Amino acid sequence: MIEPFSLACPIPITNYSHVTLAHGGGGRLMHDLIRKMFLSAFGGDNTSPHDGAVLDPPTGARLAFTTDSYVVSPIFFPGGNIGELAIYGTVNDLAMCGARASWLSVGFILEEGLPMERLWQVVRSIAFATQRCGVVVATGDTKVVDRGKGDGVYINTSGIGVIDHDLDIRPECVREGDVILVNGDLGRHGIAVMAKREGLELDVELESDCAPLWEQVKSLIDAGVEVHCLRDLTRGGLSSALNEIAEGSHCRLFVDETKVPVSTAVKSVCELLGLDPLYVACEGRFVAFLPERHADTAIEALRQAGAPSPSVIGIAEKAGETEVILKSCIGTRRPLDMLSGEQLPRIC
Amino acid sequence: MIEPFSLACPIPITNYSHVTLAHGGGGRLMHDLIRKMFLSAFGGDNTSPHDGAVLDPPTGARLAFTTDSYVVSPIFFPGGNIGELAIYGTVNDLAMCGARASWLSVGFILEEGLPMERLWQVVRSIAFATQRCGVVVATGDTKVVDRGKGDGVYINTSGIGVIDHDLDIRPECVREGDVILVNGDLGRHGIAVMAKREGLELDVELESDCAPLWEQVKSLIDAGVEVHCLRDLTRGGLSSALNEIAEGSHCRLFVDETKVPVSTAVKSVCELLGLDPLYVACEGRFVAFLPERHADTAIEALRQAGAPSPSVIGIAEKAGETEVILKSCIGTRRPLDMLSGEQLPRIC
Repeated sequence: MIEPFSLACPIPITNYSHVTLAHGGGGRLMHDLIRKMFLSAFGGDNTSPHDGAVLDPPTGARLAFTTDSYVVSPIFFPGGNIGELAIYGTVNDLAMCGARASWLSVGFILEEGLPMERLWQVVRSIAFATQRCGVVVATGDTKVVDRGKGDGVYINTSGIGVIDHDLDIRPECVREGDVILVNGDLGRHGIAVMAKREGLELDVELESDCAPLWEQVKSLIDAGVEVHCLRDLTRGGLSSALNEIAEGSHCRLFVDETKVPVSTAVKSVCELLGLDPLYVACEGRFVAFLPERHADTAIEALRQAGAPSPSVIGIAEKAGETEVILKSCIGTRRPLDMLSGEQLPRIC
Repeated sequence: MIEPFSLACPIPITNYSHVTLAHGGGGRLMHDLIRKMFLSAFGGDNTSPHDGAVLDPPTGARLAFTTDSYVVSPIFFPGGNIGELAIYGTVNDLAMCGARASWLSVGFILEEGLPMERLWQVVRSIAFATQRCGVVVATGDTKVVDRGKGDGVYINTSGIGVIDHDLDIRPECVREGDVILVNGDLGRHGIAVMAKREGLELDVELESDCAPLWEQVKSLIDAGVEVHCLRDLTRGGLSSALNEIAEGSHCRLFVDETKVPVSTAVKSVCELLGLDPLYVACEGRFVAFLPERHADTAIEALRQAGAPSPSVIGIAEKAGETEVILKSCIGTRRPLDMLSGEQLPRIC
């Protein structure tokens, strides 16, 4: 683990043990919080202390732009916390456009009364995650809301990524005959967060799959795989991602449930609680659409890049028919619909 | 007023009169909210319905990048609402870098139970404000938090702007002898929000100054004014802005209080409540630093571009001394410090 800065919280606990409304008031206290905590952790030279940052993108490159707010509850969960999640989530959204994350913004909405030490833990995680991904926090913002109008900390991260290849990666580019791959087993993030939140005592060890995905996406591009579409399997899980892609591509997508990797631990918790792993959120898993002839190369590249269990799970069966069909474990075929309501709120 | 889309809320009130947790769950309901409300209002073709948007910035241009979360309370205030504020605020942060806003992201954190009609009013204001500024909502995000963990709606907007001139605009570029200009009278936004929040019955009409500033900044650049630094006077007001610029430029800044435009209405409310207008937030005012020989051109250009009362209020007196000095109305000189705590919380 990289530790480029002090472990001790830079806001002395004797002065301000908790976040106050004044930390968002635009005066000296806010100024100190930004300088001493955020700028010291996010790395000085590259982070603008002003209203905005000026960037010099590579000449002629296409850029990707994305945003996400993170409201996960609880803030700390097995395998991660809201800080890492906010960085990896936005890095991953850019990766799904085929873009390497280059610049991020980080906006905090803090609740009055948040322990300063807890904020510092989150900030350290953000700093660690940005270093791991080689991405710069270019600009930021801090707001404080009154007690009872927030939930500790919410984080918005927006990101700009650079696209330095010619692939066009989006649902509309899916073609009949494309295979559907996932990079690993499903549902760990959602189940880990929910188990922690509900205080479930599990006799299995279950950690979030929260992780950055760019290296895996890059491995596909570098291997010459003609990637047609990528989507990370966050809120709504595999089923929502596939339904959105079916709508965008106007294809009938076919998935073989027996091929979809799900760990025994996730399976048993899901059975216990009546959840379907195909609808549970992941934060380090994605689905890729690519020509069948590239499937072996893709699986090998993903494995080399550290994907836990890359697997072909289905195929884009027929153009012109917008639906997702699941062949279940017992061999029946049925439509796999998008979740109609919500299964697990505030999972990211 | 531009009305490119239906006045009626596109989510039928008979189905969902209020926002539910499921509207943020990643399933069908969220999908419908995004398609029917956000994409229909923010303009289809240019707004990505996916995780991120792909942009083609002008070759060789520098870009500016900024972020802000908006938590203003109340959401609707005299002269504006959180939706317009979120667009103009971010457009203005880019303008302060000398950049024309080109692409925005809009991230909503909605509280369960928010009336759908109220959300629609905010969304319509966002659509109106983006059209007024000629900026595209390129990407977005929607989260819903449980009742009592938010305050109706919080909005994050991040923005990318294009810099198509060679000026270097930042505090470090302020030079000894630069004049300090403001574009109009101070304090309207903060006082209007606070009066509404506290239910004050004022016998004067007081509206927020919330407005986009790019056209005014552009008028300076187009007139050939050698702008050294720009800063909008939001949280912490004029005093915070000047103190930050003094720190960045290592200059002693001198301000003549008699030259600072403040309306009679703001003055009288401030006197009543013991507030100092120099610390009250604006959302359509900025301070500019430029060579004295360009002052007349600058004032004329700003006036032509609709600035309410452009005025020279002071000068960068001496390099090497980091402080702000105020000559008060009665002729005394005293340091104008940054606010130590907060005066008016949740003003933006």
